[in-house]
Amino acid sequence: MSEVKNKLWGGAFSKSMNETAWRFGQSIYSDLNLLQEEIDVSIAHTRMLGKCGLLSNEEAITLITALEKISPAILEQPELISQSEDLHGAIETMLFESVGELAGKLHAGRSRNDQIATASKLWLKRKYFSIAQEIRRFQKVLIELAEKHLHDPMPGYTHQQPAQPVTLGFHLLTYFWMLERDWKRIEASLKIVDDCPLGAAALAGTSLPIERNQTSLELGFSRPMPNASDAVSDRDFVSDALHIFATIMQHLSRISQEIVVFSTNEFGYLKLDDAFSTGSSIMPQKRNPDFAELIRGRSARVIGHWTAQMSMMKALPLGYNRDFQEDKPPLFDSASTVQDSLVLVSGMLSTATFNTERMKENASKGDSTVTAIAEALVLQGIPFRKAHERVGLWVQNDHSGDPELDKLLETVGTLEACIENRNSIGATGKTSLANQLNLAKQIITKEIS
Amino acid sequence: MSEVKNKLWGGAFSKSMNETAWRFGQSIYSDLNLLQEEIDVSIAHTRMLGKCGLLSNEEAITLITALEKISPAILEQPELISQSEDLHGAIETMLFESVGELAGKLHAGRSRNDQIATASKLWLKRKYFSIAQEIRRFQKVLIELAEKHLHDPMPGYTHQQPAQPVTLGFHLLTYFWMLERDWKRIEASLKIVDDCPLGAAALAGTSLPIERNQTSLELGFSRPMPNASDAVSDRDFVSDALHIFATIMQHLSRISQEIVVFSTNEFGYLKLDDAFSTGSSIMPQKRNPDFAELIRGRSARVIGHWTAQMSMMKALPLGYNRDFQEDKPPLFDSASTVQDSLVLVSGMLSTATFNTERMKENASKGDSTVTAIAEALVLQGIPFRKAHERVGLWVQNDHSGDPELDKLLETVGTLEACIENRNSIGATGKTSLANQLNLAKQIITKEIS
Amino acid sequence: MSEVKNKLWGGAFSKSMNETAWRFGQSIYSDLNLLQEEIDVSIAHTRMLGKCGLLSNEEAITLITALEKISPAILEQPELISQSEDLHGAIETMLFESVGELAGKLHAGRSRNDQIATASKLWLKRKYFSIAQEIRRFQKVLIELAEKHLHDPMPGYTHQQPAQPVTLGFHLLTYFWMLERDWKRIEASLKIVDDCPLGAAALAGTSLPIERNQTSLELGFSRPMPNASDAVSDRDFVSDALHIFATIMQHLSRISQEIVVFSTNEFGYLKLDDAFSTGSSIMPQKRNPDFAELIRGRSARVIGHWTAQMSMMKALPLGYNRDFQEDKPPLFDSASTVQDSLVLVSGMLSTATFNTERMKENASKGDSTVTAIAEALVLQGIPFRKAHERVGLWVQNDHSGDPELDKLLETVGTLEACIENRNSIGATGKTSLANQLNLAKQIITKEIS
Amino acid sequence: MSEVKNKLWGGAFSKSMNETAWRFGQSIYSDLNLLQEEIDVSIAHTRMLGKCGLLSNEEAITLITALEKISPAILEQPELISQSEDLHGAIETMLFESVGELAGKLHAGRSRNDQIATASKLWLKRKYFSIAQEIRRFQKVLIELAEKHLHDPMPGYTHQQPAQPVTLGFHLLTYFWMLERDWKRIEASLKIVDDCPLGAAALAGTSLPIERNQTSLELGFSRPMPNASDAVSDRDFVSDALHIFATIMQHLSRISQEIVVFSTNEFGYLKLDDAFSTGSSIMPQKRNPDFAELIRGRSARVIGHWTAQMSMMKALPLGYNRDFQEDKPPLFDSASTVQDSLVLVSGMLSTATFNTERMKENASKGDSTVTAIAEALVLQGIPFRKAHERVGLWVQNDHSGDPELDKLLETVGTLEACIENRNSIGATGKTSLANQLNLAKQIITKEIS
Repeated sequence: MSEVKNKLWGGAFSKSMNETAWRFGQSIYSDLNLLQEEIDVSIAHTRMLGKCGLLSNEEAITLITALEKISPAILEQPELISQSEDLHGAIETMLFESVGELAGKLHAGRSRNDQIATASKLWLKRKYFSIAQEIRRFQKVLIELAEKHLHDPMPGYTHQQPAQPVTLGFHLLTYFWMLERDWKRIEASLKIVDDCPLGAAALAGTSLPIERNQTSLELGFSRPMPNASDAVSDRDFVSDALHIFATIMQHLSRISQEIVVFSTNEFGYLKLDDAFSTGSSIMPQKRNPDFAELIRGRSARVIGHWTAQMSMMKALPLGYNRDFQEDKPPLFDSASTVQDSLVLVSGMLSTATFNTERMKENASKGDSTVTAIAEALVLQGIPFRKAHERVGLWVQNDHSGDPELDKLLETVGTLEACIENRNSIGATGKTSLANQLNLAKQIITKEIS
Repeated sequence: MSEVKNKLWGGAFSKSMNETAWRFGQSIYSDLNLLQEEIDVSIAHTRMLGKCGLLSNEEAITLITALEKISPAILEQPELISQSEDLHGAIETMLFESVGELAGKLHAGRSRNDQIATASKLWLKRKYFSIAQEIRRFQKVLIELAEKHLHDPMPGYTHQQPAQPVTLGFHLLTYFWMLERDWKRIEASLKIVDDCPLGAAALAGTSLPIERNQTSLELGFSRPMPNASDAVSDRDFVSDALHIFATIMQHLSRISQEIVVFSTNEFGYLKLDDAFSTGSSIMPQKRNPDFAELIRGRSARVIGHWTAQMSMMKALPLGYNRDFQEDKPPLFDSASTVQDSLVLVSGMLSTATFNTERMKENASKGDSTVTAIAEALVLQGIPFRKAHERVGLWVQNDHSGDPELDKLLETVGTLEACIENRNSIGATGKTSLANQLNLAKQIITKEIS
Repeated sequence: MSEVKNKLWGGAFSKSMNETAWRFGQSIYSDLNLLQEEIDVSIAHTRMLGKCGLLSNEEAITLITALEKISPAILEQPELISQSEDLHGAIETMLFESVGELAGKLHAGRSRNDQIATASKLWLKRKYFSIAQEIRRFQKVLIELAEKHLHDPMPGYTHQQPAQPVTLGFHLLTYFWMLERDWKRIEASLKIVDDCPLGAAALAGTSLPIERNQTSLELGFSRPMPNASDAVSDRDFVSDALHIFATIMQHLSRISQEIVVFSTNEFGYLKLDDAFSTGSSIMPQKRNPDFAELIRGRSARVIGHWTAQMSMMKALPLGYNRDFQEDKPPLFDSASTVQDSLVLVSGMLSTATFNTERMKENASKGDSTVTAIAEALVLQGIPFRKAHERVGLWVQNDHSGDPELDKLLETVGTLEACIENRNSIGATGKTSLANQLNLAKQIITKEIS
Repeated sequence: MSEVKNKLWGGAFSKSMNETAWRFGQSIYSDLNLLQEEIDVSIAHTRMLGKCGLLSNEEAITLITALEKISPAILEQPELISQSEDLHGAIETMLFESVGELAGKLHAGRSRNDQIATASKLWLKRKYFSIAQEIRRFQKVLIELAEKHLHDPMPGYTHQQPAQPVTLGFHLLTYFWMLERDWKRIEASLKIVDDCPLGAAALAGTSLPIERNQTSLELGFSRPMPNASDAVSDRDFVSDALHIFATIMQHLSRISQEIVVFSTNEFGYLKLDDAFSTGSSIMPQKRNPDFAELIRGRSARVIGHWTAQMSMMKALPLGYNRDFQEDKPPLFDSASTVQDSLVLVSGMLSTATFNTERMKENASKGDSTVTAIAEALVLQGIPFRKAHERVGLWVQNDHSGDPELDKLLETVGTLEACIENRNSIGATGKTSLANQLNLAKQIITKEIS
């Protein structure tokens, strides 16, 4: 059967491959995500071979011209795709059809091992940039929303119990900082993914006079990887990316959880726009926060992807192992999940209606202002622990038996005072919040360096 | 945009859905795995509605006839599929085109919540049966191979160091028993998945006079699930299945690891057939055990699937949550991975060439027969610990300084004696092995009860 | 250093072990969980050696008497423990101190490989029984609570939005059935863990005339494991147990999540007893559902344990590998987490105060009774889909424009009618609930067979 | 019961806590890892309170003096420890015993929420430094070993099949670069963990005039966290650390796997020193690479820890949730596992004996030099693909039918030429290797900036 199929090897084999095995090992449908990067890598390699004299100028130009056409063209050849073991093979076939035996010259000084690592890293770098931009877009939405609701009171929770009043703006800015750390993670990871495997060949380098510095430079890496075996054995960049993507999704799952809870009938703080709500096939009145739930659910999927990747790499010897092929589907899936989820959470929040009346009403419920009373006692010189006990007892006795505390409740213990007087760095008071917002606005203009 | 799209709800909504949200939530491509089960569930429901008087006989027949045609027909409607939120919607659309408003009667007394749970369980039960059969097929191959090599010596390893000589047949039978436990897991799990959610409706049952016993019976379940809320909140059957599939894959990963190691040049015990080997695009001499590596790699993927599923379900409240949608892609992927991997490992082993000469040669290396010598001393009344020390010292001194041990090495310490004399239950000796093989042959005829 | 340390080997070694290595590999503190099982296994082995003539009657009695004393005594020897590599070594040392060289005879026909597998399985079987009992106890509490609140209305949720009214008793019974599946999982797993590794020795059996049937029987297993290599290579029982424990914890995490959400100020359905609440070191008014949160958090820990175990076993060759040592700490930790969590959730629910007034008040909010109206239209012959649309439109128009629906709202659409009329199997209606409760009461008397 | 127990709250409670609940929630034994950091945090907080006038100078000095004594003293109070809910409580009790009610003043402007986050981050920063140093130490060992074996030939593997000859020095340097990425990960993560939660109080900041900049500075952070709610809700630093630790362990698992495989009898490339080997309780001749196996096994444990942490944090709302308590045991366990494992792998490799003769002998087996022949044809202008096919055929025909290739085998195809001629950047040739080694030597002097 597989005589007709594209394989880049076979000289030493007398029999054709088992059909189930062929299908099991075929990676091209997933590989297609890397199409542009594969072409870019091949073009850079060709140009370098030309410069090093392994191709004539003319040969290099012919190959590059042909390569540039493959990228859109290949997608219109479903049969070629379905007959190809991997993307390398499909591209080589098309190149052969286009330029004949010259195609065979492209493969000097490289192997699929360094090629796939390079294309994957290149893809990841580009994806990092676009996800970092998506984060910035979401952060902008958060800043706008926070500014709008900067001083709208809401209950602040710990253990999902009312703890101390905060403002909706303050709460929304929390999301900003979670995302800011993710942005920094991407920035830091871009520095670690920034060396180029190309030219490592199978694992030992090559005896051909190639110039790895040139391909590295042309593809935008800072240097070639310094050890050829490491270049083909390493998949750290995949697990680093999956960790970052899982972390972003974990953050979005927390935001989504709050969307779900805040839009319950019982909380009633949030009404999602129709564009982000769904109904029920049986219950005509339903209005469900499905996309918040889906994002919450998909955060688990990305956790699973990291786990799979790390478990896959565990205890593998150096050199390319075919197990590595498993690294790509989770990577592609995680990246697109993250991008879509950022767009969706951003869309859900920016179009939602906040019931600020209800939030305010609940903000002072549950004795949540009494820490301020204890702090007022501290300013009188009473140890905090004493103050805490005294206020606790008064709360348990339904605010009876301590007239001084009754009085404090009317001054420092009002909702307004309680929010307003918190002006330590990062707190909910007006001055602190203004500073925090300014800082956020400065940060958001920062681009990946 | 989404006006043209198929949704089974919308009466209470004034705006259409966000495009990214629509795509993010669309599940139909994955749902198509359940096509046959969805149809079967609808037919059973229709027949029951007919019997209960909620449909006339004629209506029931019309609907069933139409439903039976949908299963192959829908696959030829790529546009309908791409426009449908989920499979329920696509089927309903086709049904409507076929029988008009009568289609709307099908949905009495059920919701998508109980429907999808029922179709998923039905799918899983069928898949369990086919995987159990695949296990039996592999076990048969193992028995044949074991019988062929029942007394061919090979090194037995602990810590991958030569421990005691065993036989290749004995070693291969180990795989048999690992798989036998998997078969039993499937059998046990089939009993737990065996109650039917259909008719639970959204979560509270229905006021319509339906008969859940009938649909349960017709679909081959042992009973309806006794609590309607549990029926739609439960996804235990998914994580149970993923655990079993991950366990099978873990077993296959261990076998695959042995295939990889035994087919290294250094071990040289195994040569895979061309049909299960691959070459290199750069190194013409290569002969790689890619499919063993892929199976090893994919075992990690299924571990990730379980992790994702359990993390997804964690801390979800009762009732249907949209997060549940995430349960199906990993389930489908894991099941087909298991099936293919069973076929491939079976194929690899049955077509491989074992280098029994080399195995035998290595079987007595590394002083691996000396436990037998210590045991001979035990039969003389020497405490095992003493015997162990004495033999250990003699080994360290390169077999010098203890003529009695030198002599024992020639009798009980030969490769043949060492294997042959082990006749405790389950051991490598001839009698024990014959019993073990008989037991295996009896078991393999057993079918799922 | 390690001259003074207890090792059961060393004859062939000229140098002592590295100190960090020693500490890194020392497992005795975790092993102590298995103390009773280790002793039981040794006693069974001794009795068998006596019967088989490998020990005299007197020797056997001396050894057994000594072994019986070790179990409590060893715990008072912290120095011996801290100097021992593992529990096998510590026990052997004490035995030696007690009976001298006779101690060395115990180790005929076994190795640490089969010993540790046997003790672990025995421990697990016992633990399964006690956890199954704990499940039964919790189920009893659920039945009592459900009976008490059988007809107290509450909102039924899907997507955490009000869907259809149910009763608190119905809701609590959902938990019952989740736990019932866990009970069945344990019952099924007990059948798979039920064969005995003892006597497999290192991996190949033994040349000594031992009787594995006898030790298997004495220790309560149904048979010896049929392949000696499988007996020492298998750790399936650990991952099976971790799956079951993770599943129980996942169920408890869902219940805990409902405890957390239902005890928020906003829901206000539940007030935990003081005995299960905690306060804050800074906020005197706080009342936190910490134990529900801890259980929710620890469910993740057990997910991690399964993942670690499966990833650890992946791709290990046959035979004992030292990696296996990692299987025990997660197993012990998971089992005690499950036991404590069952006790705690049971305690939290049985002592909590339910605010049934508030639940009832919310039960009919959010148009959650209108499915009943659509179903009433179905009984008039209107296709459900039509009815659904019509009711949906009426809901969107704030119940205007359809006098027939207004009227139905007063009859089938009241809270009482809506709950009462649902009498399909497993539904919320009085008859259905009575049946369900009866079924639950029958089941709970069932013990592990 | 719990009257006698240390709790930092309780004013609003009328009943004592359930005993199982108390034990379930008690974290002090794990907390003790943070003892020094807890004290440091409290001292910094005290000094700041003094500067801000919330404590008199004298009070501040009294408290600081007392706090400095607690760190060693507390460890000698096992009863206090066993009676304490957490470390905060135990320290407060001791402080109270030492300075009386003044102790209660320490708690102004902070809560356990910001305190535990600060102590954890401080601990992690310190641990990062010591692990980074341990990496450097291991890298030095690798450089020394690589230099010693820089030109000793060995087989280079892909798919664990002989691919192309490399040198042992080249192979060992691969490990160097894996570890170098880990070092960079730590360096990057230190920048993200570098803001201080202290003074965020419960979640909203405080009305007391505290100076967060000062405590941040004194504790060595670059700034206070800009949002108080984020400061107490964030546990990203834990999952970041677990990802890095899991990655280091994954690298060590790969090295360990090679140690295990290379020290098999069949490979025979490596003999571990007695100090890092273990024997068998039943087989006197055994010499097992247990510590390599344990490290391999424990890499799975750290994978499980990350999974648990991410799954635990998933979908948690903002604010402190008690689930967070689960973050510490895996963090402590992972860090010490990493440290020990680095020491052990380093020790194993530096004391091992390499059988360079055998490696050299195998290096040219399996036609592993023929890629060099194909490359020679390329230099003649033959397309690589053609050359690959031609060489492949010649290999399949046992080197017959192509005299030119026979000749090339004697020149470019010798083991020496094949290694020596690979001089692309990062390759195995002499020049390339010298450059790589120099680069490594420069890098290793770099410290965390």
